[in-house]
Amino acid sequence: MKLQVAFDLQSSDEVLKFLEKNGDLIDIVEIGTPLIMKEGVKSIQKIKKNYPKQTVLADLKIMDAGLLEAQIGFDAGADIVTVLGLASKKTLNGVKQTAVKNGRKVMVDMINHPYPEKKWKELMKMGIDLCCLHTANDDTQDGKTPLNDLERFYNLHGGNNIAVAGGINPDMIRKIKSFHPEIIIVGGYIANSRNHRDALVELHQ
Amino acid sequence: MKLQVAFDLQSSDEVLKFLEKNGDLIDIVEIGTPLIMKEGVKSIQKIKKNYPKQTVLADLKIMDAGLLEAQIGFDAGADIVTVLGLASKKTLNGVKQTAVKNGRKVMVDMINHPYPEKKWKELMKMGIDLCCLHTANDDTQDGKTPLNDLERFYNLHGGNNIAVAGGINPDMIRKIKSFHPEIIIVGGYIANSRNHRDALVELHQ
Repeated sequence: MKLQVAFDLQSSDEVLKFLEKNGDLIDIVEIGTPLIMKEGVKSIQKIKKNYPKQTVLADLKIMDAGLLEAQIGFDAGADIVTVLGLASKKTLNGVKQTAVKNGRKVMVDMINHPYPEKKWKELMKMGIDLCCLHTANDDTQDGKTPLNDLERFYNLHGGNNIAVAGGINPDMIRKIKSFHPEIIIVGGYIANSRNHRDALVELHQ
Repeated sequence: MKLQVAFDLQSSDEVLKFLEKNGDLIDIVEIGTPLIMKEGVKSIQKIKKNYPKQTVLADLKIMDAGLLEAQIGFDAGADIVTVLGLASKKTLNGVKQTAVKNGRKVMVDMINHPYPEKKWKELMKMGIDLCCLHTANDDTQDGKTPLNDLERFYNLHGGNNIAVAGGINPDMIRKIKSFHPEIIIVGGYIANSRNHRDALVELHQ
């Protein structure tokens, strides 16, 4: 299992400081949607300039203009961009095409999708690289988790190429482990922890 | 009918130049999603600094973290932010709450929503200000238009608070007129025209 850390609330300078201390414990750095809104893709360029070997995911949540918006992410140096599972087929195709052209990858974000298992079957045929089962941050506050989706998914598709996000903490990782997702995405748990490094070590254990 | 012009492909400096020449012909300046990805919300600040009275819409297409992301848009000076109709109820509510707190407005973008009429009924009760019937740019290339949605909407809800977007040109405006939408959103037709001012004048006529 790889650990992806989402940076939503921090500035890109804060992300750089974080990576200086804790980069060795992170497999994928996620530049979160709010950070992209605040700073634009320059935030990705900054990370890549300082840590060229670090895998960076741009959480663009593309919903339209697939070719154009994916290229904006890849031009800035992103290794992976996200597109919504709810986007039209043409948009999803445009993002995939652009990823192939640039030798990069696409993660589809299944946030709020009513039939993620069915959709993933279609998207695998399209060659989409990764599928993120994602409970909206707003909904995790009502106690919702991506666990049920993950179990259904695992029974149908296994855990390969699957990422899971939404209120993930060490307790939930214990429950998630048996479904072998490829990537676990953690945001708030680390951001809200007193000692970031301790939190990362705990998640790895 | 108000005219909203979407700036997707231009830089914020190009938008400023455009407004210097043609701002008198535009009711709402839309900072498009690709421009926000490229430059972040600084693009909004730049426009507002130079044209404080100009109504600016930030096409954030919020899908999660409603309170946080709407505030990023309003902090930068946006008068209106967009949220996806496909976002969870909690996210939509968060964006609306933030708009009320800041004395600003919310437009819901119905892109790819399977039941936009039904959803708008629910969102009107929530106090969402504006509803955008939006055919994805990627899908307009297959000849799809928002016209059918608009006609069904008009029969149910009238044209108040309704915006329409997706491949709009003067020919389509002639067909749209009878459904009295409050806002017409034009992007590509102006960006691709030889003379931007002539295109704007033609749209107004």
